[in-house]
Amino acid sequence: MSEVRDKAALAKRTTSRMGSLSTAAKNAALRSIADALIARSGEIVDANAEDLARGRDSGMSTSLLDRLALTPQRIEAMALGVREVEALPDPVGEALADIERPNGLRIRQVRVPLGLIGIIYEARPNVTVDAASLCLKTGNAVLLRGGSSALSSNAKIVEVIQDALAATDVPPEAVQLVNDPSRGSVDELLKLNGLLDCVIPRGGASLIRTVVQNATVPVIETGAGVCHTYVDASAEPAMALDIALNAKVQRPSVCNSMETLLMHRDFAAVHLETFAEAFRERNVELRGSDDARARVAWMKPAGDEDYATEYNDYILNVKVVDDLDAALEHIDRFGTRHSECIVTNDEANARRFLQEVDAAAVYHNASTRFTDGFEFGFGAEIGISTQKLHARGPMGLPALTSSKYIVVGDGQIRQ
Amino acid sequence: MSEVRDKAALAKRTTSRMGSLSTAAKNAALRSIADALIARSGEIVDANAEDLARGRDSGMSTSLLDRLALTPQRIEAMALGVREVEALPDPVGEALADIERPNGLRIRQVRVPLGLIGIIYEARPNVTVDAASLCLKTGNAVLLRGGSSALSSNAKIVEVIQDALAATDVPPEAVQLVNDPSRGSVDELLKLNGLLDCVIPRGGASLIRTVVQNATVPVIETGAGVCHTYVDASAEPAMALDIALNAKVQRPSVCNSMETLLMHRDFAAVHLETFAEAFRERNVELRGSDDARARVAWMKPAGDEDYATEYNDYILNVKVVDDLDAALEHIDRFGTRHSECIVTNDEANARRFLQEVDAAAVYHNASTRFTDGFEFGFGAEIGISTQKLHARGPMGLPALTSSKYIVVGDGQIRQ
Repeated sequence: MSEVRDKAALAKRTTSRMGSLSTAAKNAALRSIADALIARSGEIVDANAEDLARGRDSGMSTSLLDRLALTPQRIEAMALGVREVEALPDPVGEALADIERPNGLRIRQVRVPLGLIGIIYEARPNVTVDAASLCLKTGNAVLLRGGSSALSSNAKIVEVIQDALAATDVPPEAVQLVNDPSRGSVDELLKLNGLLDCVIPRGGASLIRTVVQNATVPVIETGAGVCHTYVDASAEPAMALDIALNAKVQRPSVCNSMETLLMHRDFAAVHLETFAEAFRERNVELRGSDDARARVAWMKPAGDEDYATEYNDYILNVKVVDDLDAALEHIDRFGTRHSECIVTNDEANARRFLQEVDAAAVYHNASTRFTDGFEFGFGAEIGISTQKLHARGPMGLPALTSSKYIVVGDGQIRQ
Repeated sequence: MSEVRDKAALAKRTTSRMGSLSTAAKNAALRSIADALIARSGEIVDANAEDLARGRDSGMSTSLLDRLALTPQRIEAMALGVREVEALPDPVGEALADIERPNGLRIRQVRVPLGLIGIIYEARPNVTVDAASLCLKTGNAVLLRGGSSALSSNAKIVEVIQDALAATDVPPEAVQLVNDPSRGSVDELLKLNGLLDCVIPRGGASLIRTVVQNATVPVIETGAGVCHTYVDASAEPAMALDIALNAKVQRPSVCNSMETLLMHRDFAAVHLETFAEAFRERNVELRGSDDARARVAWMKPAGDEDYATEYNDYILNVKVVDDLDAALEHIDRFGTRHSECIVTNDEANARRFLQEVDAAAVYHNASTRFTDGFEFGFGAEIGISTQKLHARGPMGLPALTSSKYIVVGDGQIRQ
């Protein structure tokens, strides 16, 4: 028995009990976790110091070290996150349908937990707490497989969570962490059909690709975002600039930020230089199409590879297009079905864009940066789904549930 | 360019137009298909005769030849099925949420088609019409890959459908059939990420396993049903016998029929012989656990392999269990999460069974044969999902849709 299968089996054995827990019991467990994180903050910082030392020794970049680092303040923020999950409504048990059939059968469809959820993620150890609390709140067991660089932090955090659960009605075995840092443990996890009800990758494009290509268990694909803002001929220039700047620089490292700015040629003729200067002032490197570079010569040239890249950085492609059709075509070709925006005062063009663009979220006159569980009013999210099955867009608690038909009769048989 | 990728690309190009069709336009197209099937019934029968001849030459069994055969009556039933789909409500465009945020953003979540759906199925050519009409009604394009034994029938049916669509607003290219009968075409279809939004297998356990093991596109797993009926100590004997017989013999070939009868030992002590005789009279071969064979010696012995088999035939396992816990354990081990039933007069046991059994449909005092789109009141179904993501149980039209967030602002940017 391997570690992965062993821990999955341990967690799986709790799913029946997890599914029948009351909301109060789950909330008490979440409070216990939040308290324990604060109380044992020092231990967590110490464990994290081991990861940081290893990271420094192996030449990890400053920005990665920063993502990895835990301070008492960051641990407090993690605990606060758990309390926010506690405050969210519990979707489990919600009646989705209640049907009385002519033959007297009563059919109720109710929300139930998914069962055992696998989460594969990268360096940031706060995901450990986020994912565990969202899964527990929805009555799911969870098998966590974090990045190897955060192994000591994750192990300590899961120890703290399991210890905190020991005094509650939630079985501690419901939260399991895979310690094996090899690629083999991921491969094995992705094929645990019969044990894992689904797997959710949280991380960069390469992690997501690995999961999609190799999983035989159901996957919820999250995150990759090559998002566009299309500035139409009739756009209000000041609004368009505000939205474009916000979509790029307010937080470039996240999936809902803009990677390519599309601009109608008539608008570009008047405003492209102003836009380019505004981005340059904010240290954004611009890569332009030929038409764009004809107006702003200092842009680097952009090619198909650039248009297909999620930079997550201070880099932006700028492409001048002939019309809305050309913008739609570009988005269809290079977009990742995440978040797409049109800035326009032309209602017909806005309608067409919102209707025809195939993405989780489509925007008219607002920044793509709003695609987010909190901004949509759902609270904490487990990720942003870019696939169309099960859940699409920011995934709140209901995305971590399934349903079940409960049929009650008095001897009905089928004719 | 291979046939599979070529046809997928052709169909994919229609998805934007498909998604914006009115319900009236889609219904008109379905009527046109139904009319054409009747009008060209003779051509379809002729094409089917080619498949039947090939089948006979290759030694196909009588029951498989019967599944493959099309008669004017069967084609009429197919056309009637299309009209039934026409009569169903159109889920596309339905508002699932309408949120006004404090910053003035208006966020609407609306149902949209999935896009391009792949359907992989086996011998029965009526699936071609079923699948195409359900996909068209929900604004989806469809890539069909039927069994090689029905190649001529399927090709003719798709020709009739495409011709019928030519005179309507629905682009004929939205319905595509893969003619390549090799296993390679299935493998290729299963990896069409970026073109196929999901794939649905319709067929036996081996087809479903192939799809689950090899697909990199999202899958909706359907159908495999190792279903149980548990007769509790307090069950009403006449009701229990009616339900058990119905679950086994009313139509043994389908996924919601019973494969194993579990019986509480106290009930078995009094009634097992009567039950066994009733099944024997209906030509059901019985395979029993040791405890069951101690009471009915003529049963063959049943082992783990039997318990794990979906017979779809006049064969039934019979197992005597000590209590509800043992029944739950058996179902957890051998069930395929499809449909499970308890017959009991003990409300506490019923509650526990309905709560703890992890299956798409759980029954108290009614036959598992009711797990069906029509019986649940949903109308035609594309299949019965046995996975927990996206859809679970009978999949009506909403299971063929996704959703999209449409966000309208007046210049909002994220702080």
